[in-house]
Amino acid sequence: MTYFSKSRVEAFSDGVFAIIVTLLVLELKVPHLTHDASMADLYKALLLLLPKLVSWVISFLMVCIIWVNHHRILDQIAHITHGVFWLNAFLLLWCSFIPFPTALLGDYLTNPVSSLVFGGVMALMSLTFSGLRWQAYRSHGVLKPDVNRAHFRKATVRSLLFGPLLYSTGALLGLVDYRLAMAVFALVPIYFIFFNSAQQSVAHQPGLHAKTNA
Amino acid sequence: MTYFSKSRVEAFSDGVFAIIVTLLVLELKVPHLTHDASMADLYKALLLLLPKLVSWVISFLMVCIIWVNHHRILDQIAHITHGVFWLNAFLLLWCSFIPFPTALLGDYLTNPVSSLVFGGVMALMSLTFSGLRWQAYRSHGVLKPDVNRAHFRKATVRSLLFGPLLYSTGALLGLVDYRLAMAVFALVPIYFIFFNSAQQSVAHQPGLHAKTNA
Amino acid sequence: MTYFSKSRVEAFSDGVFAIIVTLLVLELKVPHLTHDASMADLYKALLLLLPKLVSWVISFLMVCIIWVNHHRILDQIAHITHGVFWLNAFLLLWCSFIPFPTALLGDYLTNPVSSLVFGGVMALMSLTFSGLRWQAYRSHGVLKPDVNRAHFRKATVRSLLFGPLLYSTGALLGLVDYRLAMAVFALVPIYFIFFNSAQQSVAHQPGLHAKTNA
Amino acid sequence: MTYFSKSRVEAFSDGVFAIIVTLLVLELKVPHLTHDASMADLYKALLLLLPKLVSWVISFLMVCIIWVNHHRILDQIAHITHGVFWLNAFLLLWCSFIPFPTALLGDYLTNPVSSLVFGGVMALMSLTFSGLRWQAYRSHGVLKPDVNRAHFRKATVRSLLFGPLLYSTGALLGLVDYRLAMAVFALVPIYFIFFNSAQQSVAHQPGLHAKTNA
Repeated sequence: MTYFSKSRVEAFSDGVFAIIVTLLVLELKVPHLTHDASMADLYKALLLLLPKLVSWVISFLMVCIIWVNHHRILDQIAHITHGVFWLNAFLLLWCSFIPFPTALLGDYLTNPVSSLVFGGVMALMSLTFSGLRWQAYRSHGVLKPDVNRAHFRKATVRSLLFGPLLYSTGALLGLVDYRLAMAVFALVPIYFIFFNSAQQSVAHQPGLHAKTNA
Repeated sequence: MTYFSKSRVEAFSDGVFAIIVTLLVLELKVPHLTHDASMADLYKALLLLLPKLVSWVISFLMVCIIWVNHHRILDQIAHITHGVFWLNAFLLLWCSFIPFPTALLGDYLTNPVSSLVFGGVMALMSLTFSGLRWQAYRSHGVLKPDVNRAHFRKATVRSLLFGPLLYSTGALLGLVDYRLAMAVFALVPIYFIFFNSAQQSVAHQPGLHAKTNA
Repeated sequence: MTYFSKSRVEAFSDGVFAIIVTLLVLELKVPHLTHDASMADLYKALLLLLPKLVSWVISFLMVCIIWVNHHRILDQIAHITHGVFWLNAFLLLWCSFIPFPTALLGDYLTNPVSSLVFGGVMALMSLTFSGLRWQAYRSHGVLKPDVNRAHFRKATVRSLLFGPLLYSTGALLGLVDYRLAMAVFALVPIYFIFFNSAQQSVAHQPGLHAKTNA
Repeated sequence: MTYFSKSRVEAFSDGVFAIIVTLLVLELKVPHLTHDASMADLYKALLLLLPKLVSWVISFLMVCIIWVNHHRILDQIAHITHGVFWLNAFLLLWCSFIPFPTALLGDYLTNPVSSLVFGGVMALMSLTFSGLRWQAYRSHGVLKPDVNRAHFRKATVRSLLFGPLLYSTGALLGLVDYRLAMAVFALVPIYFIFFNSAQQSVAHQPGLHAKTNA
């Protein structure tokens, strides 16, 4: 069995994540006005970018959360096998697609199709994450020896329910009212940043330990 | 004889690969409709993006395969000489060109010129890979001492036949029917992801050994 | 308490910074003239890009300064906690936004709204930097043991006053005359590159020490 | 005196170089034809992209050469001081500008202004390289102890004459005939790739020694 260099897979993935978050802003286009436009004209034109700004911030923070989850999983993995590599590649595929549904949401915020596409892509991305965890769990010698396998398994099952369920709910709520969908999508980063840290470190990450500057 | 730092060549190459896969999605442009477009309108407009979506997925996975091959070769190389560096640079040149034939295929899927350009670029990229392998093989001290040179040579000859031949076939089949070309192009990632791993690790990679987290 | 791998956070941040500085140039679009345009025509069309060129150079150098500050802070940090990670993420959020106000300034140089947005974004970015310093200071075990905490605290308070104040002043001066705003924005890199090095190394960075090639 | 982490400066620079070479292709836009365009139509439309293709290849290879030179210099440097960092930053500034003159050359190949801008930017980039070498030479303790200072000094003076002179000549020859300018610009990568390796390794790089996989 051959393995991939973990550091190169991390470097490639980090590169993709860094580019995605940075490309997202390219959707925010400077309004086209005449060059002698008044302050009020430019101000009003910028206000129209608000939906794009909101979907940009949500997507940016979601990619950061994906990065954190990616970091957490790879931190518990000792070897990158063929299967882990390709599940990681499919995860990157969904992630690199994020600029498209983000732009769609920015352009057609009130159209339920936007929420369906955005939530659907995120649900599939989330599902791939669970697949990556599962692949790491069931392959021999992939997880580091000090990882608590029972905990890792439980966290994998939870991730399967939590992510895809939440994003699908957001996607479907868009059919009722786009503000409900946006509320669900915005809740993910808010919850993750402010409430998730302590819980995760206790319940999900028994294999993690303090790392010093590598 | 001076050598290049292998880690910097890898970092540069990984950066280029990461950017290519992420830039590919920029070709998927959100359709321009009026802002009060109905769900059906937006849905239909998105369906028209299907050819672009298919060519995006194929190109994404092909770049991942290139990354895997690049990783495999560099893993067997001890030193990066002037010749290896520039063959690697030409490989990156073809790779960074991929967004163009991908966009061409997405825009003119049924036009044989698209398949010819896409398959032709991929064949040249594949040829450069074989050149890189050959340069590594024939230069003194480039391959790691534990690499089985007879196996490496055989794999190099096989890569010369397999890649360019396959891509040229796809390119030419586009003259008959674009679906035949797409089937060949899509077969490459499918074959590589689902059937290639075991075989490669036995037949092509005798010099590889398990790597732990670097 | 779990920590993040400092090297991966650095790699992710470096990737974002590298992409930002490089994307900035995409705003400089080649003028559209007929292909038989005379030398004078093309020269005049290029001259019109001067405001974009100036705002590009200023933004480029500002991102380099942000990189230097980021490097300085991370160099004094031993562990990346949840709090430090997310403050860093918000810093990257502001930074990845920079291409937008830069383009705005390039398009509407004389409109005070541009200076307000540019200066405002920079002030918020600068405020996030102070927040990151503060978080590093008040969290147990985040700063390296050899960092002089009194000096770090003083530098944090100074950064709180200096950055946001300076950028807000530039933003507001744009209401009087855009040249005043530009002068303030241009002064930041000039001051930082030519006068800041010696002072910083004595007053702000007592915890730093010579690093050899890692 | 404080120093920068050489590995982070390298990572940042490698990121910028990788993005530049990859962004260059974005200038190659797929032609807009009707979707039932014939093979001949598409073929003819693609032929019109030839000047852009040529300037793309030249710029791509030039950035690779810059990477090689950057690698060579940093390989001889032990510490990155404030001065070295900012000269490196200005080098990256010129490099990240390259997509603009490349696009200009692709759009207005026969207009002498394009050659002047392209050659001028390259000459300034080249001058910054010499400045970086000079700064490394004259600053105490920047060069590695095993670097032959007399050779390094001679190579610095030669780089001052060679690069800026060559690029200025190309720029000015564009006033006579654009093909002369293109010939000079194309000669640089051809010379560098096929003739420069042996000479450089003997005459310029006495401080270099074989590096194993880091």
